[in-house]
Amino acid sequence: MTSFQDKLEKYAELAVKVGINIQPGQTLVVRTPLNAADYVRAVAKKAYEAGAKNVHVEWSDEELTKTKYELAPDEAFHEFPQWVAKGYEEMAENGAAFLSITGSNPDLLKDADPERVSNANKASGKAMEGFRSYIMSDKISWSIVAVPSVGWAKKVFPNESEEHAVEKLWEAIFAATRINEEDPVSAWQEHLTALDDKMKALNDKHYHALHYTSEGTDLVIELPETHLWVSGGSVNKDGVSFVANMPTEEVFTSAKKTGVNGTVSSTKPLNYGGTLINNFSLTFKDGKVIDFKAEEGYETLKRLLDTDEGARYIGEVALVPHQSPISDTNILFYNTLFDENASNHLAIGSA
Amino acid sequence: MTSFQDKLEKYAELAVKVGINIQPGQTLVVRTPLNAADYVRAVAKKAYEAGAKNVHVEWSDEELTKTKYELAPDEAFHEFPQWVAKGYEEMAENGAAFLSITGSNPDLLKDADPERVSNANKASGKAMEGFRSYIMSDKISWSIVAVPSVGWAKKVFPNESEEHAVEKLWEAIFAATRINEEDPVSAWQEHLTALDDKMKALNDKHYHALHYTSEGTDLVIELPETHLWVSGGSVNKDGVSFVANMPTEEVFTSAKKTGVNGTVSSTKPLNYGGTLINNFSLTFKDGKVIDFKAEEGYETLKRLLDTDEGARYIGEVALVPHQSPISDTNILFYNTLFDENASNHLAIGSA
Repeated sequence: MTSFQDKLEKYAELAVKVGINIQPGQTLVVRTPLNAADYVRAVAKKAYEAGAKNVHVEWSDEELTKTKYELAPDEAFHEFPQWVAKGYEEMAENGAAFLSITGSNPDLLKDADPERVSNANKASGKAMEGFRSYIMSDKISWSIVAVPSVGWAKKVFPNESEEHAVEKLWEAIFAATRINEEDPVSAWQEHLTALDDKMKALNDKHYHALHYTSEGTDLVIELPETHLWVSGGSVNKDGVSFVANMPTEEVFTSAKKTGVNGTVSSTKPLNYGGTLINNFSLTFKDGKVIDFKAEEGYETLKRLLDTDEGARYIGEVALVPHQSPISDTNILFYNTLFDENASNHLAIGSA
Repeated sequence: MTSFQDKLEKYAELAVKVGINIQPGQTLVVRTPLNAADYVRAVAKKAYEAGAKNVHVEWSDEELTKTKYELAPDEAFHEFPQWVAKGYEEMAENGAAFLSITGSNPDLLKDADPERVSNANKASGKAMEGFRSYIMSDKISWSIVAVPSVGWAKKVFPNESEEHAVEKLWEAIFAATRINEEDPVSAWQEHLTALDDKMKALNDKHYHALHYTSEGTDLVIELPETHLWVSGGSVNKDGVSFVANMPTEEVFTSAKKTGVNGTVSSTKPLNYGGTLINNFSLTFKDGKVIDFKAEEGYETLKRLLDTDEGARYIGEVALVPHQSPISDTNILFYNTLFDENASNHLAIGSA
């Protein structure tokens, strides 16, 4: 039996070697909540051992975020430090790789004023636009992995003690990311090859449209004449491969902007910036969301759809196999990184 | 009896109201190790309650620092991110206040290559020169307070368990910073008035020189014709009072650059950037250190004295009362913030 520390180190190695695929002399930037400190320390060791020049860590703290939403004046949510945004751009320009650690409490901002949340997201989105373009275009290597917080673990396993909930969530993450395989790095290389094969098969088919039907869903998505299916393995501008999401099980493409019609209902909740949107549906006409419902997080969904002109159009169409290590866990993670990889999904906004 | 949480909150309030003296609408920047997270969260609450617009926290981690010294390539220690330095300057320019939390393990870098440590200090010193000028000239409000780390606590109380050592160090810090008084904020206001009175008395005396004698020490320090004694209470460019060091018991002035002659021996160790210099002496001729000894940390003291032209001259001459809450603890803290306030001291470098 493998100890927790062994698994944690394997998981760190996987992020460094497969997720980021760090190159000698490169700087690794890690964006992480405080509670992932033990994992970040393991990642830093693996990164230096693989030849990284420096590991720069940007920490955040859920409790401080919550306190700010509770006590700061309104004006604080319209600002984002420009020097931080410039710093990210500078590091990206200099070829750094970016590892983000996710795992916040899905209910963290449940009681926060949605207008504050929306303003803060807009301010950071605008300031970080330049950096985001490096990410969205895969110019640089980037990856997202998950580490449990107590709040997240208790959301997934509400009947367990805090300690057991965190343990169980770790086990689920290890299972979903193939850490229980003898050699996770090789297992991932095989997995990425399999995803590539599916991508090629779909591209050969050159489908005109996809028709989704199930309870609450009857949706036709036309695909652009020139659409290309893409899988979870990416390549940066220097030709270095990386994996942006760990886990990833999807093969995805874009939709024809005006060619989406019908209604789609969610089968999993969406955690958007600390607020959960659950049991929701979207109705499209000629590509645009013209109606929507949500049993939970209606206000947040409304603001999300009103973010900008593109937010009511589909940006990503993803197919996911019925069986995978994630869906085998049979767990609702309340975290998009996992839940989106357990079933077919759509994403709205920039493609 | 007051609970630990009560004392922690009083200590947070003291830093916010007396140390920094936060003003409505102001941003508070906190520079802190991860292990002080609970205290930082309490500080953030008190700051927002006192009207702060935002609390920006820059975290560091001792273990990551140690890993970097062990595993990173040499070139990493010649660099400091310019965008971070610019960010500090920008925040200072915009009138932010800066709270630093000290409390690192005094032996953290005991096994690190002194050349790496020296290079890193030089790189950060150079990059942060602009920001440092805001601090050194008291343009902005800044303050340093201490929070125990396990490593520091075990250095001070080597025979206690980790848990007890941290508890005992917290108690010593609370005692030294007057947190056990019923109203620490008022107690500090009285204390600062008393320091001011001593400062005025010394300025009235207008001494020509100070003569220090004790075992291993026979030193004459001439004071400049225009010297002024200053106490621990400071005032920033906007006329807002603050206290740069908590605790502070000293009244200090500068020396005549060429007027220092004789030998001075340490009675307390000096923790310089994670390395301890202990049982050391400096011999001056016409203001300059011409000889030095150290039973521990000789190499670090040598590099410190060779930092630049000014590093061999005295920058600060401080007088400290024989009795104070710090010296009453009868504890050797291995942390300059405390130990310098338990006895008369001298500082080399920029005045």
